Amino acid sequence: MAAVKFKQLRPSYGFDEVAIVPGDITINPEQVNIELLIGDVKLDIPIIASAMDAVTDVKFAVLMSKLGGLAVLHLEGVQTRYENPAEVLAEIAQTPNDKVTALMQKVYSEPIKEKLIGDRVRAIKKAGGICAAAAMPANTKKFAPIVVEAGGDIFVVQSTVTTARHISKSYRGLIFSELCRAIKIPIVVGNCVSYNACYELMKTGIAGILVGVGPGAACTSREVLGVGVPQITATIDCAAARDAYFRESGRYIPIITDGGFKKGGDVCKAIVAGADGVMIGSVFAQAKEAPGHGYHWGMSTPNPVLPRGTRIKVGTTASLQQILFGPTSLTDGTQNFVGAIKTAMGFCGAATVQEMHKAEMVIAPSITTEGKSWQMMGPSARA
Amino acid sequence: MAAVKFKQLRPSYGFDEVAIVPGDITINPEQVNIELLIGDVKLDIPIIASAMDAVTDVKFAVLMSKLGGLAVLHLEGVQTRYENPAEVLAEIAQTPNDKVTALMQKVYSEPIKEKLIGDRVRAIKKAGGICAAAAMPANTKKFAPIVVEAGGDIFVVQSTVTTARHISKSYRGLIFSELCRAIKIPIVVGNCVSYNACYELMKTGIAGILVGVGPGAACTSREVLGVGVPQITATIDCAAARDAYFRESGRYIPIITDGGFKKGGDVCKAIVAGADGVMIGSVFAQAKEAPGHGYHWGMSTPNPVLPRGTRIKVGTTASLQQILFGPTSLTDGTQNFVGAIKTAMGFCGAATVQEMHKAEMVIAPSITTEGKSWQMMGPSARA
Amino acid sequence: MAAVKFKQLRPSYGFDEVAIVPGDITINPEQVNIELLIGDVKLDIPIIASAMDAVTDVKFAVLMSKLGGLAVLHLEGVQTRYENPAEVLAEIAQTPNDKVTALMQKVYSEPIKEKLIGDRVRAIKKAGGICAAAAMPANTKKFAPIVVEAGGDIFVVQSTVTTARHISKSYRGLIFSELCRAIKIPIVVGNCVSYNACYELMKTGIAGILVGVGPGAACTSREVLGVGVPQITATIDCAAARDAYFRESGRYIPIITDGGFKKGGDVCKAIVAGADGVMIGSVFAQAKEAPGHGYHWGMSTPNPVLPRGTRIKVGTTASLQQILFGPTSLTDGTQNFVGAIKTAMGFCGAATVQEMHKAEMVIAPSITTEGKSWQMMGPSARA
Amino acid sequence: MAAVKFKQLRPSYGFDEVAIVPGDITINPEQVNIELLIGDVKLDIPIIASAMDAVTDVKFAVLMSKLGGLAVLHLEGVQTRYENPAEVLAEIAQTPNDKVTALMQKVYSEPIKEKLIGDRVRAIKKAGGICAAAAMPANTKKFAPIVVEAGGDIFVVQSTVTTARHISKSYRGLIFSELCRAIKIPIVVGNCVSYNACYELMKTGIAGILVGVGPGAACTSREVLGVGVPQITATIDCAAARDAYFRESGRYIPIITDGGFKKGGDVCKAIVAGADGVMIGSVFAQAKEAPGHGYHWGMSTPNPVLPRGTRIKVGTTASLQQILFGPTSLTDGTQNFVGAIKTAMGFCGAATVQEMHKAEMVIAPSITTEGKSWQMMGPSARA
Repeated sequence: MAAVKFKQLRPSYGFDEVAIVPGDITINPEQVNIELLIGDVKLDIPIIASAMDAVTDVKFAVLMSKLGGLAVLHLEGVQTRYENPAEVLAEIAQTPNDKVTALMQKVYSEPIKEKLIGDRVRAIKKAGGICAAAAMPANTKKFAPIVVEAGGDIFVVQSTVTTARHISKSYRGLIFSELCRAIKIPIVVGNCVSYNACYELMKTGIAGILVGVGPGAACTSREVLGVGVPQITATIDCAAARDAYFRESGRYIPIITDGGFKKGGDVCKAIVAGADGVMIGSVFAQAKEAPGHGYHWGMSTPNPVLPRGTRIKVGTTASLQQILFGPTSLTDGTQNFVGAIKTAMGFCGAATVQEMHKAEMVIAPSITTEGKSWQMMGPSARA
Repeated sequence: MAAVKFKQLRPSYGFDEVAIVPGDITINPEQVNIELLIGDVKLDIPIIASAMDAVTDVKFAVLMSKLGGLAVLHLEGVQTRYENPAEVLAEIAQTPNDKVTALMQKVYSEPIKEKLIGDRVRAIKKAGGICAAAAMPANTKKFAPIVVEAGGDIFVVQSTVTTARHISKSYRGLIFSELCRAIKIPIVVGNCVSYNACYELMKTGIAGILVGVGPGAACTSREVLGVGVPQITATIDCAAARDAYFRESGRYIPIITDGGFKKGGDVCKAIVAGADGVMIGSVFAQAKEAPGHGYHWGMSTPNPVLPRGTRIKVGTTASLQQILFGPTSLTDGTQNFVGAIKTAMGFCGAATVQEMHKAEMVIAPSITTEGKSWQMMGPSARA
Repeated sequence: MAAVKFKQLRPSYGFDEVAIVPGDITINPEQVNIELLIGDVKLDIPIIASAMDAVTDVKFAVLMSKLGGLAVLHLEGVQTRYENPAEVLAEIAQTPNDKVTALMQKVYSEPIKEKLIGDRVRAIKKAGGICAAAAMPANTKKFAPIVVEAGGDIFVVQSTVTTARHISKSYRGLIFSELCRAIKIPIVVGNCVSYNACYELMKTGIAGILVGVGPGAACTSREVLGVGVPQITATIDCAAARDAYFRESGRYIPIITDGGFKKGGDVCKAIVAGADGVMIGSVFAQAKEAPGHGYHWGMSTPNPVLPRGTRIKVGTTASLQQILFGPTSLTDGTQNFVGAIKTAMGFCGAATVQEMHKAEMVIAPSITTEGKSWQMMGPSARA
Repeated sequence: MAAVKFKQLRPSYGFDEVAIVPGDITINPEQVNIELLIGDVKLDIPIIASAMDAVTDVKFAVLMSKLGGLAVLHLEGVQTRYENPAEVLAEIAQTPNDKVTALMQKVYSEPIKEKLIGDRVRAIKKAGGICAAAAMPANTKKFAPIVVEAGGDIFVVQSTVTTARHISKSYRGLIFSELCRAIKIPIVVGNCVSYNACYELMKTGIAGILVGVGPGAACTSREVLGVGVPQITATIDCAAARDAYFRESGRYIPIITDGGFKKGGDVCKAIVAGADGVMIGSVFAQAKEAPGHGYHWGMSTPNPVLPRGTRIKVGTTASLQQILFGPTSLTDGTQNFVGAIKTAMGFCGAATVQEMHKAEMVIAPSITTEGKSWQMMGPSARA
C-alpha cells in the first residue's frame, strides 16, 4: 500500500477557537499607531464598513470617513437602482418574514442607473468623505471609469470568490492587470482565502485584498455550497502570501479580513493573524446611522435561483461613534472596537498593526467557557 | 516498555467538520460537467435516490430518470410485498408513534412476491425510466435474474456492511465474481467504508460501490452497534482504493457516497472527498412526489429483534424538480442541489467531478458557527 | 530554552468520540463466541452487573447467572446492613430529593453484620447462581474468608482507585499477593485506568481487573476531584498491560471495563478497545428485576464529608432478559446488548472477543450527529 | 514555497478539557501536606481569596487566615474609598441590573483615602489575621509603603497583564527590582500567562506570581480583547518558568493560578498542571461571610470607557468553613475544596503539592459527559 494516497486535510480555525497571548513587554495603549494605508489612501483606523445595503449609504460613508475609517458603497444595490433608496429600504424593513425574499427579488431586479453611480460618488466627495465603491467583476469595466470620473478614491471588485484567473467560454473575464493599468485609483479585490489565490491577485498590481468566504452574519454560502475557510486560518494564509510577495517585490499590499466579526476580541484576533484591516457588516448595521433600520441581509440574498443569504434582525444599539470609540456600558465587547484594538496591542507590546502580527496566538476553544458558567446562564445571572 | 503496543486510533471527519477551499482558478458554473457513469449507464447528474420505501416507488424512479438522475427500487420493501403498496404506505403514515413499530413489523412480514419484482421493473422501463433495483445479498441470486429478465438496467446488492468475503457455516455466501459473470447488467455493491473492503469488492468485477455505514437520517446503527465511519473519511478512504485499483487495472469504478446529506454543501463536500456520485434518502422523502407522505424510515427499522432505524417526520417541502434544480426561496441549502454542485465546482475551477476530487478541503468545525450568532438564534432572528 | 520542560498531556477518548470500522471480512453473528473466563469461572456472556445497591441483590444475582452473566453483591451496602433490605430500598426510592442525602447518610451508618454476609452468599448459591461479592480494601481481609466459607465463587476488591502499593502510616495496607495466596477463589480488583497500575496489580496474582475511574452515571468523582480517564483510553492502556503481562507470564488476566455504558454501541466499543468483559450499572438499574425501584446511586453518595455520587432517576424500562437479549421495539441501542455485540462482531469478522480487540477504531466525534438532525430534534421528530 | 512562513498556533487547554490520571501508588489522604510558602509567610492550605470587593473585606481576610489560607484586600475598591463600605456594597446588591453599571461608575469614582489603607491593614492585623493587600502598578509606589508601615505581610501588584517591562512615554513605569529592594515584605505580582513573561518577573526578585488572564467568572476580557490563555496551559507554561528559574537561581517562587475555578476538581487540575496555590473569587463570593451579598463583579467592571467585567449573581450557599473543609451534602464539587485536594493527591500518591506536579494529566474533553446523560438532564433527573 506504499503507493496509496489518501486525501489530506489540514486543520483550520475561526475566531472563537483562538486566543491572543499577552507579550513579554507591555505598552501604553495611547502610544499605539493603528493606521491603514491602501495605495495612497491613509485611514486613521483600520476598520472598513461593508459594501452592503443595510450598512453603507452616502451619509454613512461620510460619517465613517470623518471618524477615521472607510465605508464602501455597493454599486449594485438599492443606492444605484433607485433615486430614493431610503424608501425602498424602509419597505424591506417593514415587510414580514414570509414575503421579504419575494420583495427583495423584485427590488433588486430594477436596473442600475449609471447616472446614479456618479451622483452617489459626488455626494460623498462633496460632503468631505473618502469614497470607496464596489462592483462585481462583470460590471467593473463599465462602472470603474464612472467612479474615477466622479472623483472616487478606491474601487473595490468583489464577489464571493475572486481569482486572478477565471475561465468562461461565454465572455472574456476581467483581467486585473489591465484594470490596474486603466484605472488610476487603488483597486481592492476579493474575496479570497488561500495563499495561492491571494498571491496571484497581488501580482496583478492591485492595492488591497479582502479575505473571507462565507463568514458573514447574513451569509449562508457555507451551508449551501460547503465552501469557505474559517477567518483566522484564511487570514494567516493570505498574510503569508502578502509577506512573501513583499519580500519579492518590495510592495506591501494590505489584507483586510472581511466578515464574521461580532466582538472587539474578534477584530484583535484577526490582526494578530495578520490582517492589516478589517471589514465589518452586521455590527455596523446596528448603528443608529445605518440605513437598514436594524435589519441586515447578504447581497446574495435576492438571487432568484440559488439564494445564499438571509435577512437577519440585528437591532439598533448605539451610534457609530460609540461602536467605534465608546464610551459604553456594555461589557460584552460589542462596542468600542478601537479601544479594544489599542488595549490588546498594549498587552502585546505592539506599537503598530504590523508588530501586532507577531504576537503569539494559541488554539483555545475553551476560552469562551472557562470559568464562565454564570455568564453562560444568560441575562438573568448576568444580573 | 519498548515492546508495549497501545491500540492506535486515527481521526475521522464528517460533513460538518470540513469545508472546501476555493481554487486558484474559477470557472463559469455553466461550463461544468457533472455526469456519472455506472458501467454503461450514463446519468446527467451524479445523484441517486435511496432504495428506501419512503423515497422510491415506480413513479418516483421514472421522474428521477427524466430529471437526469437515478432512483433505486428496494425489492424487499412494500413494493414487492403488496399489489397495492400505496395503501400500506398511507397506513404507515397515519399510524401514531407508539404503534408504528408493531405495524411495520407486521407489514414487512408479508412475503415478497417474485411476480411483483418483474412487474415493477417493467413498469419503470415502460414509462421510459432507467431501472435500478436493490436486494440484500441473501436474496440476490434469486432476484437478480428476475430483474435482468424484466429489462432492469442496474442491480444493487446492499446491506449495512458488505464485504467480498463473508464467513458463514449455515449457508454459502454470495460470491460477487460469480454474480458479475452471471448477470450482464452493472452491479453496484454496498455498503463499505474502508480502503481494503472497497478495494477487494472492486476486484470482483462490480461496477460501483456505495460508501457509508450508519449516516442515514433514519438509521441508528451507530448508537446500537457503535459501528460506522463519518462520511468524509469513509469517502476519502474508498476513493483512495478506487484510484489505486484504477492505476492497477485501468478500470474506473465510481464510488457513491450514501447517506447523511442534509444540504447542498454536504454533497459538494462528498465530491471533493472523492465521491463520483451521491445517494440521498431523507431529503428526497421531502419531495411532493415521494411515496412516504412526509415520513421516512430505515429499512432496518422493522427488524423484530434488533431494530436499528427509526421513523422520522421530514415533512413535504417542494417538488423533486425544485429540490434538484431550484428555483428556491430557501437559503439554507436544502434545495437546488445541482446548482450548488455546479457553483461550488466553479469556485474550485473544476470542470468535471474528477477535477473536483482535487480541490483542497480543510478541517473546519467552526464553519457552521463563525459569525452566525444571529442565524443560530433561529427563525425569529432570521427575520 | 533547550532545557525547558513543559508538562506534556496526551489525548484520551471516551465512548462518544470513537467508532468501530467494519472489517474486510464479515461473519455470521450466530457463529461468534463471546464467553468470558475469570479464573476458573466461565460466563457465557461478557457482561457483569455492578456491585451497587440499586442493581444487585440476591434475586438479581441469581437471574443474571441464569442468563449467562454475573452480578456482584456489594458487602458494604444495605444487603449486609439490614435483615430486610427491600424495606430500606423502598424508603430511599420514596424519599424526596432534598431529604435523600440525609436519609442515605443515616441508612449507611448502620453497622454491617458479618452473619448477613454469609447468608446472602448462601442464598445465591442455593438458588443456583454464581456468587461474586465485593468489598473495599479495608474490609477485604475480614470479609473475604466469610465469602469463601459460605461458598462464594469470586471476590471483588473495589475502591475508586486501587493500586498494588498503598502508603499509610495508620494501618498496614492490603497486600494483594498475600490475599491471593490466602483466598482460593478468583480475586478481581479495581478500579484502575493506567498501564502501570494495571500491570502491577496483575503481577500480584489476581484474576481480573476492573477498568474505569469516574465514568459511572451516578458518579461525580470527575467533578469533585478532577480525577479520571475516559473509558476508551483507559481500556486501551490496561489492555496493553494485559497483553504485555501475558507475553511475559503466559497468564491472560481479563480486564473488565466498568461504567459509563448507555447503549449497546458503547459495549461494542469497549470490547474493540480491548475489554474482555464489561460491568454495567445504570442500565441494569432500569430492569424490572432491579432492587432500586427505578432509582440509582453511587456507593460514594452517602459519604458524609466528601460525597462523590448522586441519586438519579433512571426509570424501569424492561426485563433483564430483554435488556440483554431483546426482542425490543426500542431503536436507540438501550436494549439487546448481546445482539449488538454479536452483530458488531459479525461486521468486523471477529469470531471471538479477543479477535474483536483487533478491529479498527477511529476517532469520530461526528458519529453522533452526522445526518441525524431529525433524530436530534427529539421524540416529536422521531415520530 | 520553501520560504513561506505561516503563523503557527499551538493548542492550549482549560480545566474542562483535562483530567488527572491516578498514580501507580496511592497514599492515605490524611498524610498529605498542602502548605504554601510565599516568601516567609507559610499558609496551611494553598488557597487564596481574590482581591475583589465582593469577596474580601477585613472580616473575611481574618476568617480566611484563621482557616489556614489567605485573602487579599484590594486597595482600590470600596474598602479604601469609603469609611463605611458595607453600606455601599449593600446598595450595589440592591440596584437592578439596568442601573448597576452607572451606579458602579459613580461608586468607584470616589477618591481613595490613604488613611483608610492603613486602617484596614491594622484592623486585619489586630484581629490576628495575615494581611495581604493589592494595588495596580500605577498606585504601588504610593500604597506599598503605607501597607508596610501599618504592618501588612504581603503586597500584591496586580493588573490584567503585568510584565517586567512596560513602555510608556507619559510616565516612568514601576520597576519591580527597585520595588523589591524598597519594600521588605514579600511581593506577589500578576497576572501573567506565558513562560517568558513569568520568567522575567521572577528575575526581578518578587516572591510569587499570579497566573491567569481572563478566566474569572465575572471577567469579559476574553470577549472584549480576545486576550487570554486557558488556565491549564497558562499554569504549565509558568510552572516551566518557575522550574527553570529554580534550577538556575536556587530560589523557588510559587505560582498561584488565579481565576476560573468552579469545582474542587478544577483546583486539583491546576495543582497537577504546576500550581503551588490557587486564587479563587466567585466561589468565595458565595460564602455566607462574603461582603457581596451573593453578587460578584470584576474590578474592571466600573471602567467607564471599556468595561471588561460584569456583575453576576452567584448566590449564598454555605459558610467559608464548609466551602473549604466540608462537611457537605452537595455532590457537585463546589464544597470541601481541601478534602478534594487531599483525596486527589492520595489517588496520585503525592505527599506534597510539589509531588502532585508530577502526576499525569490527559486531554479529556469527554470527561464531563461520558456516562452522565442522566446527570446532564439537570435537577429533575438528579432526583
